[in-house]
Amino acid sequence: MELELQLAVEQLHARYAQALDSDALEAWPDFFTADGRYRITTAESEARGLPLPVLYAEGRAMLNDRIASLRHANIYEPQRYRHIVSSVLVERESDDRIKSIANFLVVRIMENGETLLFASGRYVDRITFPDLKYAERVVICDSRRFDTLLAIPL
Amino acid sequence: MELELQLAVEQLHARYAQALDSDALEAWPDFFTADGRYRITTAESEARGLPLPVLYAEGRAMLNDRIASLRHANIYEPQRYRHIVSSVLVERESDDRIKSIANFLVVRIMENGETLLFASGRYVDRITFPDLKYAERVVICDSRRFDTLLAIPL
Amino acid sequence: MELELQLAVEQLHARYAQALDSDALEAWPDFFTADGRYRITTAESEARGLPLPVLYAEGRAMLNDRIASLRHANIYEPQRYRHIVSSVLVERESDDRIKSIANFLVVRIMENGETLLFASGRYVDRITFPDLKYAERVVICDSRRFDTLLAIPL
Repeated sequence: MELELQLAVEQLHARYAQALDSDALEAWPDFFTADGRYRITTAESEARGLPLPVLYAEGRAMLNDRIASLRHANIYEPQRYRHIVSSVLVERESDDRIKSIANFLVVRIMENGETLLFASGRYVDRITFPDLKYAERVVICDSRRFDTLLAIPL
Repeated sequence: MELELQLAVEQLHARYAQALDSDALEAWPDFFTADGRYRITTAESEARGLPLPVLYAEGRAMLNDRIASLRHANIYEPQRYRHIVSSVLVERESDDRIKSIANFLVVRIMENGETLLFASGRYVDRITFPDLKYAERVVICDSRRFDTLLAIPL
Repeated sequence: MELELQLAVEQLHARYAQALDSDALEAWPDFFTADGRYRITTAESEARGLPLPVLYAEGRAMLNDRIASLRHANIYEPQRYRHIVSSVLVERESDDRIKSIANFLVVRIMENGETLLFASGRYVDRITFPDLKYAERVVICDSRRFDTLLAIPL
């Protein structure tokens, strides 16, 4: 059972990464519960307890809006991402809630072919069980500076 | 059973990566079936349906040739690679065939010690079951430009 | 059982990475046996059989010393690391000893936000069973040059 849970969560993270990296952005909100929260912050902000995230969205409508505005903006700047996820730790919080922590690295591939380290950090997730949706996905970036304004979700 | 299959495929990808990264290049063709296909292409080519891969090899003889020519060329340019593979999705296509999709990142370490992001992308594989060989490994690179002429296989 | 062993080792590597990346450096020695050995070397040194590692520590006292000196030095140079671990191969050597090989990539995030590829290579580990501690962790770096003097453990 514990093995199955571990692999089920790794699969969820894998499908999430594959969806973003294959530009299936419209599938992104479906990884969350109806009132799911998505937040990007920095390790520095987390450590200092600063309240303002880099990005915050709550509920499918806001998540959908995010994708819609990206689709509009990205007409002008085609780009590609590749997510690498590792070191996934899984913990049961209750009968219907799982906590997961994982390391990530995202590279960004620009139109001209240049590949950059775009972001690194950790995912801290609350996941519903057994349907495996993100009730909360907090993306804690290591670096204090990065441009997420036009970025694909991490 | 599903767990076992997932882990068996991850192990295959792991052994493949370890072989390449430890310079055991002669072991590379053995990861494929006798008529196995290996293809490197770019995401852009795939999306546009362009027919020409960056590199194509079919059958063990061609795969062996590839390694032989690398061994010759690499006399002049020692280098090292490190493969990171994550987000492995596995799907059964039939009793004796598995499909797998995985993200990869490869860094290249030059003779002078410099480390570069060399390639990122996804592996799309057809794998035989139960002997776990690549009947087809398609390496879809995110970037449109890279030098694979003298490169170790991805 | 084999599945469980594979996942247990992956979890060990994951907890190790998460501890370092979240600055829980004081927990680092506890990942080793009381007389555990930690060694950083380069692929070139390993291949040539050169005896001098980049860094060597044996036993918890030396491991603790290492962290203590880092804590002192790091007052002057705050930094952050992110470990990505993949392609974990696990092998039973005896009833109470496991061998593991894994690929790693470490990025370093400087105070000003800059993110660098810091190191890549492989972990070659001897792990005790069933308590899952590193009896030996050898970190074989691909590049011949890097500054580990002030570095967080890899």
